[in-house]
Amino acid sequence: MISRVQSISLVPPSLKDNTGDADRLVIALKKKLQTNDVHIDLDILKELPIVLRQGDYKLRVMCFKDRRGWTVAGIAPSENQRPMLGLAIDLGTTRIVLRLIDLATGETAGQTGLDNPQIPIGPDILARIHFAETPGGLEKLSQIVVDGINETLAALCETNQVTPRDIYLVSMAGNTAMTHLFLGLPPRWIIREPYIPVVNKPAVMKTRELGLAVRSSARILIFPNIGSYFGGDLIAGILYSEMNKKAATSILVDVGTNAEVVLGNDNWLIACAGAAGPALEGGVTKMGMMAGPGVIDKVSIDPATRAFNIHTIGDHRPRGICGSGLIDLAAHLFSAGMVDIRGRLIPAECGDKLKTIDGVRYLVIVPKQESATSEDLTLSQIDLDSLIRSKAAMYTILETITQTVGITFDDISKFYVAGTFGAFIAPRSAITIGMIPDLSLDRFETLGNSSLEGAAKALMMVDCLAEIDRIRDGITYLELNVNQDFMNRFSAAKFIPHTDHARFPSVRMPK
Amino acid sequence: MISRVQSISLVPPSLKDNTGDADRLVIALKKKLQTNDVHIDLDILKELPIVLRQGDYKLRVMCFKDRRGWTVAGIAPSENQRPMLGLAIDLGTTRIVLRLIDLATGETAGQTGLDNPQIPIGPDILARIHFAETPGGLEKLSQIVVDGINETLAALCETNQVTPRDIYLVSMAGNTAMTHLFLGLPPRWIIREPYIPVVNKPAVMKTRELGLAVRSSARILIFPNIGSYFGGDLIAGILYSEMNKKAATSILVDVGTNAEVVLGNDNWLIACAGAAGPALEGGVTKMGMMAGPGVIDKVSIDPATRAFNIHTIGDHRPRGICGSGLIDLAAHLFSAGMVDIRGRLIPAECGDKLKTIDGVRYLVIVPKQESATSEDLTLSQIDLDSLIRSKAAMYTILETITQTVGITFDDISKFYVAGTFGAFIAPRSAITIGMIPDLSLDRFETLGNSSLEGAAKALMMVDCLAEIDRIRDGITYLELNVNQDFMNRFSAAKFIPHTDHARFPSVRMPK
Repeated sequence: MISRVQSISLVPPSLKDNTGDADRLVIALKKKLQTNDVHIDLDILKELPIVLRQGDYKLRVMCFKDRRGWTVAGIAPSENQRPMLGLAIDLGTTRIVLRLIDLATGETAGQTGLDNPQIPIGPDILARIHFAETPGGLEKLSQIVVDGINETLAALCETNQVTPRDIYLVSMAGNTAMTHLFLGLPPRWIIREPYIPVVNKPAVMKTRELGLAVRSSARILIFPNIGSYFGGDLIAGILYSEMNKKAATSILVDVGTNAEVVLGNDNWLIACAGAAGPALEGGVTKMGMMAGPGVIDKVSIDPATRAFNIHTIGDHRPRGICGSGLIDLAAHLFSAGMVDIRGRLIPAECGDKLKTIDGVRYLVIVPKQESATSEDLTLSQIDLDSLIRSKAAMYTILETITQTVGITFDDISKFYVAGTFGAFIAPRSAITIGMIPDLSLDRFETLGNSSLEGAAKALMMVDCLAEIDRIRDGITYLELNVNQDFMNRFSAAKFIPHTDHARFPSVRMPK
Repeated sequence: MISRVQSISLVPPSLKDNTGDADRLVIALKKKLQTNDVHIDLDILKELPIVLRQGDYKLRVMCFKDRRGWTVAGIAPSENQRPMLGLAIDLGTTRIVLRLIDLATGETAGQTGLDNPQIPIGPDILARIHFAETPGGLEKLSQIVVDGINETLAALCETNQVTPRDIYLVSMAGNTAMTHLFLGLPPRWIIREPYIPVVNKPAVMKTRELGLAVRSSARILIFPNIGSYFGGDLIAGILYSEMNKKAATSILVDVGTNAEVVLGNDNWLIACAGAAGPALEGGVTKMGMMAGPGVIDKVSIDPATRAFNIHTIGDHRPRGICGSGLIDLAAHLFSAGMVDIRGRLIPAECGDKLKTIDGVRYLVIVPKQESATSEDLTLSQIDLDSLIRSKAAMYTILETITQTVGITFDDISKFYVAGTFGAFIAPRSAITIGMIPDLSLDRFETLGNSSLEGAAKALMMVDCLAEIDRIRDGITYLELNVNQDFMNRFSAAKFIPHTDHARFPSVRMPK
């Protein structure tokens, strides 16, 4: 296995062998890397003669293989024992995560995150794309992300006693819109019919072109996307899950406002994306919010006493509920018989927890005297209706993609839940409300921040680009047609767990 | 034959075909260019969606094939009929010449030149390299050349009603040291044993990296060198002469302080370089100077009257003599019997034109009353001795290289004289003094500024890099060993025309 970090010892030049410095290095690298093409940038040429002569013709070379061949992404004298680091970036819409990796050993050298600095400009993708269309807007959106990453990275480096100059390679995964905004590419046509990205497979670039404050010769690999609604973060997830290398068929699901799904094995991959609505991320309910201190992430209800057992992040007083908490809550309300199969609150069962204001029913989850906000934290019938639609959309997308390739849920050996948000969902609760199919729990695997993990994995894979392109190019993208069939399936899924109970044998129907 | 300038008409995207903009262009280019790899820069990605939509998906694309594959070096809407230009640069030590070429038609769109702005810092390569070793020196030398080119180019563009933004491709040829200084590469080891360039084959770069004020996406091809003393200007000369494509053996000679020689045919090429001293360029004699107004470039002497017939550039009053004038002068002095076979002025034959000052003999070529300087323009015995050594070195180099491959001068079907300076040499005079072999005059061909011509030719050759590398990599470089054999040949050549008169049958010996 060829390593990206090569230790090279050259024979010093002489009158009998007056090969140029770069040529001398290239000859040695061609042999080590088993290639006939090694590219060296001007930056590196400028330092090469000094590094060679100071280090007695011994040096360490960081090599990167992109789509066109091998490139030297940095050199250092061999006696200089500074690390050669890679930086993996998960470029999320709400959160950006950075991880430093030692390219020689694969060890993590530090990790941190920052809220996407674009949030104050626009909380969601749509708002940011509209801002990008105002004069100077695109440049600003791009600049603040780069600045934010640079600042956070500088702090991360300091904490870990390394410097940004120790970073020779960057790997970044994000959705299509975030990638466009980062690169400063006009995102206008991503959200407008027929939904066209400027680029799906950006070339490997010099980090300097993008203003990233790392070693000036460093390269950046940006994960390719399939189209406007299936981005590099998902490709990174597939790379991390290795579902494309397994004979058994598995499915990878990124749960969010937009549900992205990939189904397949080492022989084929099919993908689709569809709107699920913001309910699954806790984005509609009055008390819904992103995960954070004091946010309810787990709920259970004693079936006998109907007492709520509420868990908050950090065990603070509750101030809201996140998506996974909401799914838990809905599942337990159903199991406790407080919500019917249509997702309606049952007054007789909810008792004095139920209030009606302006004709809308509310269930008090946390009374004001126990909440952090000094107000009741409630779940309204409207919130529940919204959740039902979202979970039905999710289930319908899963049903549609499996039916399209002619398999059943039972044929799925692994059900990967991708994304940071997905990691918090309790599969048992998601099954209970009929959001995901009723598979035995051991088939579910949460991947955590699979976008970051995939980006980090690429840093240590010499042939990562070939593998990434193989994944990307091998995916058949299924356009979801919201036709009568789809609507029929959707209608049937708008029950808890489903009109067809037989599909969810593990879900015990309340008395 | 594939053209670099492609007119492309794309099918606009639709819901049924929502390929990304860049992917759409790449698919079309792959077909047109018959390749499976087309690279597009971030700069071009940024303008692509606008150019596509404004031009109804019709555009012109300038494509460049480098060592790694095809690259888009610029796009323009098809209805915009601005030219797509290339810029050829001859980066000479004393003079830099720029030529604009229309990449679609191959026509010259303008040409101009400038004195190398490094001259005030150091008149010759050695002085500049020493300056490059002072703090900030290298950066300054690089910067002033780039600035000089940019300024001259801006004026050239204005004159020709084009703009630097119309320039999509730059091709540059220069010697190894000039190329290093231009690129900002430390030239220190070029002139020190064992004479190592930093790089012989610089990669194709973005012009922006070098600060050239042309289109930001434009690429620059820099001719590779063989080593410290055989540069890209010579490779360009070979490309232009096409000696590497001819079955008959020819020789290419660049006459200067350093004599560079290539010998070969379509089967093999051998090259060498050796010091000839500055005499051949008019650089030693008191009245020697570079070609320019009032400089003597041609001389003849009436054998009967011994009257000097002097021609100056621009027919101005004479103020000095250039190398070609000096060779002419020496040849005619010999033919007129005023100089003997050892190159010594013969007092009896020179008459009152001869003066002796401090024991050194001087021949008055132009008396002060006729000169532009109001001083006698003279040729001293020291000047003549220096010329004899230089011409002997030149001849010895030619003899050595032909003997090394086992051929005679008669086997040489073409004798190419490369370089601007060489173009002024009268082969008849050069033969008379025994500087070049006594071949029939129709075998001599002056190539003019072969470095510029080669650079210009590359602009119109789609596969230029493959051809250039084939030339460069195919050359066997012969290190001239100044051994006893060489010294013996050199001693024999220090006569006019040679100790062995039989080698120069066409040279009539004076009575």
